[in-house]
Amino acid sequence: MAHDTSFTNQEFKVVGSRPPRPDGLDKVTGRALFGADTFAPGQLVGRILRSPHAHAKIRKIDTSRAEKLKGVKAVITSRDLPDLTNGNRGNFDILENCMARDRALYDGHAVAAVAAIDEQTARKALKLIKIDYKILPHVTDVDKAMAADAPIVQPHIRHDDKPSNIANVSEFGHGDVDAGFDQADVVIEKSYLTEQAHQGYIEPHACLASVGPDGQGELWVTTQGHFTFRNVCASLLGMDIAKLKVTSSEIGGGFGGKTHVWMEPVALALSRKANRPVKLVMTRDEVFKASGPTCSTSIDVKIGAKKDGTVTAASATLRYQDGAYPGPWGMLGAMTSWACYDFENVKSVAYDVLVNRPKVTAYRAPSAPMAAFAVESTMDLLAKEIGMDPVEFRIKNAAKEGTRASYGPTYGPIGIGPTLEAVKKHPHMKAKLGKNQGRGMACGFWFNFGGQTCTDLNIGVDGTVNLTIGTVDVGGSRASMSLIAAEELGIPYERIKCNVADTASLGHNDTTVGSRGTFSSGMATIFAARDAIDEMKERAAKAWEIEVEDVEWRDGCAHAKGVAHSNLAPMSLKEIAAASPTTGGPIAGHNEVVADGAGVSFASHICDVEVDPETGFTKVLRYTVVQDAGKAIHPDYVEGQFQGGAAQGIGWALNEEYVYGEDGRLQNASFLDYRIPVCSDLPYIDTVILEIPNPNHPYGIRGVGETSIVPPLAAIGNAVSNAVGVRLNHVPMSPPRILKAIKEKQAGL
Amino acid sequence: MAHDTSFTNQEFKVVGSRPPRPDGLDKVTGRALFGADTFAPGQLVGRILRSPHAHAKIRKIDTSRAEKLKGVKAVITSRDLPDLTNGNRGNFDILENCMARDRALYDGHAVAAVAAIDEQTARKALKLIKIDYKILPHVTDVDKAMAADAPIVQPHIRHDDKPSNIANVSEFGHGDVDAGFDQADVVIEKSYLTEQAHQGYIEPHACLASVGPDGQGELWVTTQGHFTFRNVCASLLGMDIAKLKVTSSEIGGGFGGKTHVWMEPVALALSRKANRPVKLVMTRDEVFKASGPTCSTSIDVKIGAKKDGTVTAASATLRYQDGAYPGPWGMLGAMTSWACYDFENVKSVAYDVLVNRPKVTAYRAPSAPMAAFAVESTMDLLAKEIGMDPVEFRIKNAAKEGTRASYGPTYGPIGIGPTLEAVKKHPHMKAKLGKNQGRGMACGFWFNFGGQTCTDLNIGVDGTVNLTIGTVDVGGSRASMSLIAAEELGIPYERIKCNVADTASLGHNDTTVGSRGTFSSGMATIFAARDAIDEMKERAAKAWEIEVEDVEWRDGCAHAKGVAHSNLAPMSLKEIAAASPTTGGPIAGHNEVVADGAGVSFASHICDVEVDPETGFTKVLRYTVVQDAGKAIHPDYVEGQFQGGAAQGIGWALNEEYVYGEDGRLQNASFLDYRIPVCSDLPYIDTVILEIPNPNHPYGIRGVGETSIVPPLAAIGNAVSNAVGVRLNHVPMSPPRILKAIKEKQAGL
Repeated sequence: MAHDTSFTNQEFKVVGSRPPRPDGLDKVTGRALFGADTFAPGQLVGRILRSPHAHAKIRKIDTSRAEKLKGVKAVITSRDLPDLTNGNRGNFDILENCMARDRALYDGHAVAAVAAIDEQTARKALKLIKIDYKILPHVTDVDKAMAADAPIVQPHIRHDDKPSNIANVSEFGHGDVDAGFDQADVVIEKSYLTEQAHQGYIEPHACLASVGPDGQGELWVTTQGHFTFRNVCASLLGMDIAKLKVTSSEIGGGFGGKTHVWMEPVALALSRKANRPVKLVMTRDEVFKASGPTCSTSIDVKIGAKKDGTVTAASATLRYQDGAYPGPWGMLGAMTSWACYDFENVKSVAYDVLVNRPKVTAYRAPSAPMAAFAVESTMDLLAKEIGMDPVEFRIKNAAKEGTRASYGPTYGPIGIGPTLEAVKKHPHMKAKLGKNQGRGMACGFWFNFGGQTCTDLNIGVDGTVNLTIGTVDVGGSRASMSLIAAEELGIPYERIKCNVADTASLGHNDTTVGSRGTFSSGMATIFAARDAIDEMKERAAKAWEIEVEDVEWRDGCAHAKGVAHSNLAPMSLKEIAAASPTTGGPIAGHNEVVADGAGVSFASHICDVEVDPETGFTKVLRYTVVQDAGKAIHPDYVEGQFQGGAAQGIGWALNEEYVYGEDGRLQNASFLDYRIPVCSDLPYIDTVILEIPNPNHPYGIRGVGETSIVPPLAAIGNAVSNAVGVRLNHVPMSPPRILKAIKEKQAGL
Repeated sequence: MAHDTSFTNQEFKVVGSRPPRPDGLDKVTGRALFGADTFAPGQLVGRILRSPHAHAKIRKIDTSRAEKLKGVKAVITSRDLPDLTNGNRGNFDILENCMARDRALYDGHAVAAVAAIDEQTARKALKLIKIDYKILPHVTDVDKAMAADAPIVQPHIRHDDKPSNIANVSEFGHGDVDAGFDQADVVIEKSYLTEQAHQGYIEPHACLASVGPDGQGELWVTTQGHFTFRNVCASLLGMDIAKLKVTSSEIGGGFGGKTHVWMEPVALALSRKANRPVKLVMTRDEVFKASGPTCSTSIDVKIGAKKDGTVTAASATLRYQDGAYPGPWGMLGAMTSWACYDFENVKSVAYDVLVNRPKVTAYRAPSAPMAAFAVESTMDLLAKEIGMDPVEFRIKNAAKEGTRASYGPTYGPIGIGPTLEAVKKHPHMKAKLGKNQGRGMACGFWFNFGGQTCTDLNIGVDGTVNLTIGTVDVGGSRASMSLIAAEELGIPYERIKCNVADTASLGHNDTTVGSRGTFSSGMATIFAARDAIDEMKERAAKAWEIEVEDVEWRDGCAHAKGVAHSNLAPMSLKEIAAASPTTGGPIAGHNEVVADGAGVSFASHICDVEVDPETGFTKVLRYTVVQDAGKAIHPDYVEGQFQGGAAQGIGWALNEEYVYGEDGRLQNASFLDYRIPVCSDLPYIDTVILEIPNPNHPYGIRGVGETSIVPPLAAIGNAVSNAVGVRLNHVPMSPPRILKAIKEKQAGL
């Protein structure tokens, strides 16, 4: 059934309010069940043996001693996860990343696994597995990996007709950049580096898997997309999709890192072999080494402008380090790099480069923060060079409705201009700065996605409502969807209970990525609610013995239209629900939709820092996020997303990085050595929500979850550079790097 | 949406086959999760303190010492389950039965409960609860309870303007029985007793409850109706229906005994008070004493007939012992007693009588077996008296299409005549009998119910199908529904996976009672599948760019109709599913229905026994069940129901009974002393499935689960009487009772 998805500028009664979050109490009292919090009778403990080498041939695996250990119920290697991918290389990469075949491709790559009656036995069994490795040369640096003589990570990948670590080349843009640069009064060209960062979710990957010899299975797992996990695991293990039931637990942070299977197929294979349920929980060390962090990058940016601030050309060359398996990361970097601006001549070329590091996966607006760091730093340099205020410079060049985006489409109504105008007027911009202090600002862009979405809505006889969604709640979707259902049905928020269904109980939902949760489940919820309203109108019409066309729904009641029916008192949802057992049975609404028309999202951030010139330590003094939400369904959560994205961006900008040794091994795989910001590291992050409706959503919703991680690297880079008088071009801008930059400046280098 | 529910005599391709049961492997390998098989972090052990008295005033409960015991997290009494029933006496009875208020009404009545960190602590805590009882006079016998001077169980109940144990009087019938008896050549009048029996399910009641202080809760429970449990528990505890999520476990037998809440509200109240999950598992002793067995009865039957076998009048007075709370049991006995026959003058009057025994609940065709024992024994006596073959006598008087049933309605096409004709022709009837051996036969009737039912069907991208039902699978509904969905969709059975949804994921489903599962979920499954087919036809029409009216669905494929489209190759479900992500998203079908038009079900049983005249021990030599199934969806399960009902009836007929002492306490609350038949007690039970379609179901389905327990008491009674030459009128016909009857005959009494 086709539904009208266009925005209607209605007055909201419930949407936009800030009721308590439905999962809050469970989470603070410990009742909430996360990935490791379920148990099955007879469950075993799974543990994975991982390569200690960055790159090695696996000549032989001897599991015989482990198998003989008392209490060991299954030992598996890649033999137990045979290749069923039928030449689908993407699926094969996922399979091989879950369990190495002839080679271990990075420090931490899984090579075998055991299931045993307890943790101690499992650990002991791992030690009894003997592997004959032949160590191979490795490469972990993105620029070095592009060199002609670099060790090759994936021999099947070719570039320029040779085996290469360059997996993809992506190019976007329009106009003639060479001609544009010729027209410029000033051209700035600069190179940037960003280091690899991890999403740093508090909850490690964890699951409980159970597979019977009849090919039916269940998986309880912390994930952003249990339907996707189902399809991928079923495909890798040769199961029917319908016969693998996946339930998503509460999720202790995902940020893109839980969009992908890591050890779940291993847990299923262990369970299948042991014929017992298997619990598999990754340690923090494993999470760092063998789940999917984001790329490190090496980026060159060149921008030319006239003295009046008109940018005449812009180009970027972006190198994204994908780990051992290719991804879309370079493409996303190339697409997002210039998306904030309306440039006549613009180009970006991106390379996906393989190295001996873990397979990269999404991290909140993946690839955009690094590109923005390079672009927005260079924009500041250029503004300075032509003597223009950096905000005015950006306003002059900002994309607007009708702009042809550098990555192709033509924008509808968008928020980059309004966020910049809001920044310009914000008191933060006029606050005084002290010694060693600097202010920076930067812009950011992120796509939103829509995708496949299903929602069911069932009304109980007491008029309370079960709303069933399939997009995992990573950022408040249960609260937001309840608000939307309450708005549509015209009943209080408190009467709705939203649950995330397991895969057996609802149609397929794409993973909660691309800031799609509120947009897409919001759309499906609106249509499901309207479906239920249609049914309730039918019931009222039947009770009143009038035509259903003469019934309208408002304020939670069926109303008979027209003077002819003025004797008919409105019939409330509660009354209709109470009567339902004898008027046709349970009242439900359903919707399955491919949610098209997702918006684009823009933000502008302001940041004040103080840098200690003695130590290079940077303190963030003040931080303001201005972002377009389309429509803020539950403003608390929107602000929370703005703040959370900024906090993660600040951590990445100043401290977080993967440190690899010469041996290709990760040296800081713990929260002690990989330091994410804690509360005392951060100021209160101020937020300004703008609402420029997405014309393709009934409520005008845009995604809000990711964009706010895009500007911080650049905003802080600009602030630090303004504070210390020297341009920082390497993220994280940790104390040693800042000190080095200050000293080089002092030495006149 | 209205659907056509009438029977269409189609040729079935999948329905009627016998594929392996989908839950079989899980059940035999131990993977299946029953009521006690789930766990939550921090869960407590709940235990209930029960009255040791048959009837006592509770003067005071002192829980202070128990509360102080280390490891005790909650102690509750009726104060913690306050009366929120607003004068709804039915709900109050449920509440009071879960936790006694001012009086304990039977041996085993719950009076307090604890939740503690482990079993030992919980048991210790129970011992520390001090209760000041004042013992009151009690009554446990149904006939004694009707006496004018009997102790009164429920003082609010009045009969003939006086406090009474007679809770309900139900009367059915038509014609003039007095005039009818006057026309009779022979009148037989006889009284019968049946003792109280328990369903004897192997799995005790068990649940895991978790309620937070925000009023949201979850319940994992072994039940026949998790949606009903949800509504009842939410109502008793003052929760919103939508905020209590109930998941039904696998069920280790129910037979009506798991249609009702017993300790589930107690577990929820304990969890709410302790703010921790609470696991509560009843012991076998508790199951016998404090769950709901079936009634004991005292029944008088009078039948008059002409010498040619025409029955001129029949009347019955039936006294059903309901335990401490009134139920519909007398009414059901009165309704079913004469339902097999076409009598001109017929009457039944039934009394629901309260005693100090546990609240009675449904046991497979509740109330019918006792009435059938009395009626069918008397029918045999009458046949003998007029010298007519008992089968011929029944055939002559059997109800048929157009008969006005004794309980009101006029029958459509029914199966009693055909089952009797099948019995007449069955080789069993001609087999030779030896010394001390006897043959008996008897008929039985049971209603079928329909009720509220919801089904969802979701198709995965690989073309496998998740079918989501809400009727708990007590007798194979997952297999049967998968067959039905496969039939409708035109795909193999193996491509369907049927799950029983939790209450958060599907609309309300009435409890699996009244043999309604296959009838009602079958109907909803057919309509949900057709809903999905409509969507697939739309997709095909769109792909082919033709009108959807020109698409038909057959053999698992969309076909373009007509010569104009003969170039279009059929498009299979698998192909349509694979394309679905880009053709409109996930494909689903939904249905919510009140399944009206349930059939009625009849059976005739034949039984051979040998009675040892020295010991009174009866061995069942041969047993044949002939029953009308309407349509046998999965014949294995239908036969299993026939056999299971017969087995339970045989146990009840020969051995099972509640034995109360003079003190009103149950003396045999264990499987050692309450002996259900084991495999070696039973012959192979032969089955004959007749298929007389129910005109009100698309597939002609009737319920099959209950009727087969109705005839055995009488069939065995008739066989034993034929073997020993003396009429047995007291069930169970245990060795002492048979010996006594033989001795009384020998003594000429």
